[in-house]
Amino acid sequence: MDIRLARRTEEISSFYVMELLRRAKQLEAQGRDIIHMEIGEPDFTTPQTIIDAGLSHIQTGEVKYTPASGLPQLREKIADFYLQHYAVTVAKERIFVTPGASGGFLLALGASLNPEEELLMADPCYPCNSNFVRLFDGHARTIPVDAASHYQLTAAQIKQHWTPATKGALIASPSNPTGTMIAAEQLSEVIETVNELGGCFYSDEIYHGLVYGKKATTALAFSDNVFVINSFSKYFGMTGWRVGWLVVPEAFIEATEKLAQNIFIATATQSQYAALAAFDPDTLTELEQRRVNFEQRRDFLYNALVRLGFEIPIKPDGAFYIYANCSKFTDDSFQFALDLLEAEGVAITPGKDFGDHKANHHLRFAYTTSIAKIAVAMQRLENFINNKG
Amino acid sequence: MDIRLARRTEEISSFYVMELLRRAKQLEAQGRDIIHMEIGEPDFTTPQTIIDAGLSHIQTGEVKYTPASGLPQLREKIADFYLQHYAVTVAKERIFVTPGASGGFLLALGASLNPEEELLMADPCYPCNSNFVRLFDGHARTIPVDAASHYQLTAAQIKQHWTPATKGALIASPSNPTGTMIAAEQLSEVIETVNELGGCFYSDEIYHGLVYGKKATTALAFSDNVFVINSFSKYFGMTGWRVGWLVVPEAFIEATEKLAQNIFIATATQSQYAALAAFDPDTLTELEQRRVNFEQRRDFLYNALVRLGFEIPIKPDGAFYIYANCSKFTDDSFQFALDLLEAEGVAITPGKDFGDHKANHHLRFAYTTSIAKIAVAMQRLENFINNKG
Repeated sequence: MDIRLARRTEEISSFYVMELLRRAKQLEAQGRDIIHMEIGEPDFTTPQTIIDAGLSHIQTGEVKYTPASGLPQLREKIADFYLQHYAVTVAKERIFVTPGASGGFLLALGASLNPEEELLMADPCYPCNSNFVRLFDGHARTIPVDAASHYQLTAAQIKQHWTPATKGALIASPSNPTGTMIAAEQLSEVIETVNELGGCFYSDEIYHGLVYGKKATTALAFSDNVFVINSFSKYFGMTGWRVGWLVVPEAFIEATEKLAQNIFIATATQSQYAALAAFDPDTLTELEQRRVNFEQRRDFLYNALVRLGFEIPIKPDGAFYIYANCSKFTDDSFQFALDLLEAEGVAITPGKDFGDHKANHHLRFAYTTSIAKIAVAMQRLENFINNKG
Repeated sequence: MDIRLARRTEEISSFYVMELLRRAKQLEAQGRDIIHMEIGEPDFTTPQTIIDAGLSHIQTGEVKYTPASGLPQLREKIADFYLQHYAVTVAKERIFVTPGASGGFLLALGASLNPEEELLMADPCYPCNSNFVRLFDGHARTIPVDAASHYQLTAAQIKQHWTPATKGALIASPSNPTGTMIAAEQLSEVIETVNELGGCFYSDEIYHGLVYGKKATTALAFSDNVFVINSFSKYFGMTGWRVGWLVVPEAFIEATEKLAQNIFIATATQSQYAALAAFDPDTLTELEQRRVNFEQRRDFLYNALVRLGFEIPIKPDGAFYIYANCSKFTDDSFQFALDLLEAEGVAITPGKDFGDHKANHHLRFAYTTSIAKIAVAMQRLENFINNKG
């Protein structure tokens, strides 16, 4: 038998945080209390309105395939959402319901990216985004970004790094791990530049609902010729349901439909019916309360980390992460994370899960746990730093 | 903007039956009664035991991500199933829960197939299977098969068509569209041959539960070095839930885990909890009754088609399809299907959705509807043939 792996698998990385997670589980099995600040999943349950919508569909017993592009009524609701929330008109034919944002990336890159083509993206960025490029035998070309550009690509960087092999550029805003947003003007320039260069633009907007004090701008406000990936997972609290959506340029509708038929058949039916309640006023009221709660956590965590001596040049605008510079304490953030877990039972994610650029000087703290727990974690972190020094 | 599609999309086909489906919907909107014999989805609802297991998990509100490889207790149940049902031992570490069989194909081919490599498969076969190969920029090399080999590849054919570019071979048994099974001895020879040639073997076993008068043999009975794709969709009646599984050779566990983390994050949680009830004795009793019902439909449809003059050299062993030779009536089975729909309101699938080999002389009839409806459809088919002649 041929036991050679496909070459693409060699360049697709496991997450380093998995090593921490395994150790955290061992420690928990030994009775240790671990505070989890590594988890990219809201700690809230799915809103009851959404649960009820899912339940009532399942009770019919008719959990059958939907069209590959998704339930027509859900595609319409998403189009309405763009109109209501962003004042942007999107034809529902351009909207595909997908198994989470993951499914959106599969379709968008499957329909557009050829082997050996390159996609420009920021370093640091969420590792799955570059791994999707690798899945289709392309190459993620990561560009170091810093606080000056809110950890987001600029039009100048895109021009500078563009080569004949470049297919396009990807921006995730708010960013995972930095939580920072691209300014509307910067986004507009980036999209214009990519279109002028004859490339494709991909906008990862999965954290759009979770922004604090600002409003996120969708790439669709500037151009119809963009791929937009979004999800019901984070803001809408539906992680385990695996349902999201993708907006494609008109020229890609037919190819995307073909791919969806073949790759998924369809997104899980009960998840789509549940998502029909996601835009209900009652749901949105509950989600707004959660957003405010996340904002309070952000403020609490930000202040605590700054007080302890972590450098955070920009207060994050959204998502539920703070990407903190720990160079005052260590030149090896992974070891720092391992030691902190061992000594104090606090789990965080090392910078090297998000790229190479200053990765050893950064740690990602997720505030997907209560302020009470974050407070205990900060006390433990302080002990750890004091004992270390 | 670059509106060039990825090259792979050019070779991924839409399903011709979609054209029929669109027309069928128009006719239904006009009030016409259409009998659907084109649908590859059981008409039964999901068994109540499975529904209840899904509901009670959702009611907890904790629809959170599971591990990428699936719920540990579900992987264990699947391993138990192999032991109970096939008397085969499969380590649960080799079992990955996937979003339907589609997800299994994504992982299996993503982990093993390089661009430009070839996979041998039968013509006719299910079109998604070759399209998955194309998704990863490989090539499906289809080999014409006939009744003599139960429409399945033989070891001799594999040897004959093997080239330096061949990665491996895929067998789907029972087959879609033919419903025929590979004999255990033939399967054993095929696997041995592929392993001797240093390739990978992929076994699509999604119709395994739905066999009549015989027992299906899993590829795992002959070798641990095989990829096996299976699903809760067909036999277990869970199409819309999107949950299946993949068994990989030990050498591919780590790469598959990495891919699953990146491509899916995880399979829908509530679907996995629902599937926990799939192997319960109560569920299996209900599924057995359905299997008997499908067998009665097969017999009824088979006899009716043969009486009308369709050639069916082998009575199908399983799945819910009959692949009938219609050369007595037409040299253009697609036109025949369109005309039949228009004249008599019976929807069936044209041969060319399944390949090139004698495709214009074949039609696929799905018995995913009641015997009463099949009887009416056969009466209408008889009228159509008589009026045509």
